[in-house]
Amino acid sequence: MTKSEIFTQIRQKESYLCVGLDTDIQKIPPHLLKEKDPIFAFNQQIIDATAAYCVAYKLNIAFYESLGAKGWESLEKTLAYIPPNIFTIADAKRGDIGNTSALYAKAFFENMNFDSITVAPYMGIDSVTPFLQYDNKWVILLGLTSNEGSADFQRLRLESGEYLYEKVLKASQQWANDEQMMYVVGATHPETFKQIREIVPNHFLLVPGYGAQGGDLQTVSKLGLNSEGGLLVNSSRGIIFASNGKDFGNVAQKEAKKIVAEMKIYLHS
Amino acid sequence: MTKSEIFTQIRQKESYLCVGLDTDIQKIPPHLLKEKDPIFAFNQQIIDATAAYCVAYKLNIAFYESLGAKGWESLEKTLAYIPPNIFTIADAKRGDIGNTSALYAKAFFENMNFDSITVAPYMGIDSVTPFLQYDNKWVILLGLTSNEGSADFQRLRLESGEYLYEKVLKASQQWANDEQMMYVVGATHPETFKQIREIVPNHFLLVPGYGAQGGDLQTVSKLGLNSEGGLLVNSSRGIIFASNGKDFGNVAQKEAKKIVAEMKIYLHS
Repeated sequence: MTKSEIFTQIRQKESYLCVGLDTDIQKIPPHLLKEKDPIFAFNQQIIDATAAYCVAYKLNIAFYESLGAKGWESLEKTLAYIPPNIFTIADAKRGDIGNTSALYAKAFFENMNFDSITVAPYMGIDSVTPFLQYDNKWVILLGLTSNEGSADFQRLRLESGEYLYEKVLKASQQWANDEQMMYVVGATHPETFKQIREIVPNHFLLVPGYGAQGGDLQTVSKLGLNSEGGLLVNSSRGIIFASNGKDFGNVAQKEAKKIVAEMKIYLHS
Repeated sequence: MTKSEIFTQIRQKESYLCVGLDTDIQKIPPHLLKEKDPIFAFNQQIIDATAAYCVAYKLNIAFYESLGAKGWESLEKTLAYIPPNIFTIADAKRGDIGNTSALYAKAFFENMNFDSITVAPYMGIDSVTPFLQYDNKWVILLGLTSNEGSADFQRLRLESGEYLYEKVLKASQQWANDEQMMYVVGATHPETFKQIREIVPNHFLLVPGYGAQGGDLQTVSKLGLNSEGGLLVNSSRGIIFASNGKDFGNVAQKEAKKIVAEMKIYLHS
């Protein structure tokens, strides 16, 4: 999917919401457990309920991988079920030496046709570039993550005076442009959004940590939106597990609509 | 598996060889392709041929994941086939926010019973600690990797004067001791081995990059071995793909024996 196709979606839906399919078998409504594939049954209903309100789905691969080969099947079926005009993210945080990254790219881009994958930067250029060999596929590189541990290394100051995450943002711009690379920037660091936007003015930012982790949508939007959209704000648990009953689809839709109503204001201000 | 059990293996076999099961469907002997599960058939014969000479098997998860649900089954069968006294490594380079890392831990330690997993440090403490909640299971944290891209971030100098990888080695020692944590240190950086041993004198180091990537076994061994073994040196392609014919098991064994003959010298010097 191209950058302008993503922006078209954002304008049409007046939304930059990404719904996170962190589908936890222990948290889905109990009545689904009698289904042949409860994870897929849950995802189907969530997708039916939210597809009109979000521009992206993020599938947290751990939730599927933790179920073994069966989980892998649920993942493949879910991906195939997502309408083709919606951007798909494999939240996998992969990254390895070149020949290995190339295989992860094959897994997520060829075998499964995801539009994008999250990648960890620690191993540097040759761990990232194999993911860039595909037309209209995206690397979403970890910049500044939403968790507490982001202080341990990402926010260390380098000899050059920059923080490590700033160096990651700068160095990786040499590897791919804003038509192929996005960055993960957690909503839990609103104070840094302005400065990050200066380093990467044109890139899309994938923003986790809104909702359950406490990020602030208004600040993130004000500082993060740009003339081509520029933001995908993810919410997982706050939407998909908003109800544990048979009404979970409707309740998820209600939560998504609530967020989108707010996003509409920021898009027009 | 405990540290002393690993060392017992090393003494008994006079070997600190780890065989990397980077089993690439495109590189296995063609006669195996008619098997029901060619990947598993290949791994079985490699394990039969090398189990007496190595103390660990490292399964590069990308090679299995790139084959989808079927690859996942080959992975599970391979792991179950490895003799229980041999240390097993899921080379997965995972690392995510706490609840997600906990699921990866479940996937590799509970569902699959690996002894260890490689973890990327970029996301910090809470991305690593969920893997430490299991008795006798290990985190193998990326320190200084073997690839070219290790220069991009790992070898950046911090304001404190240390390199980032040194900071990773130091900070992570607060999270777990040398009975639960090992470090990945590439064989392609022999010049740094001495200094890394000073930072982590007692930890096991998993050393990739020997063989195909050009690392030097003598230097690595001289600087890396300690009184409890302290090294697992991995060879993948150099052993498992040494022959593409029906004799691949025998040839793999010959290659493994050659390395072990050299290791024996270093263990006794």
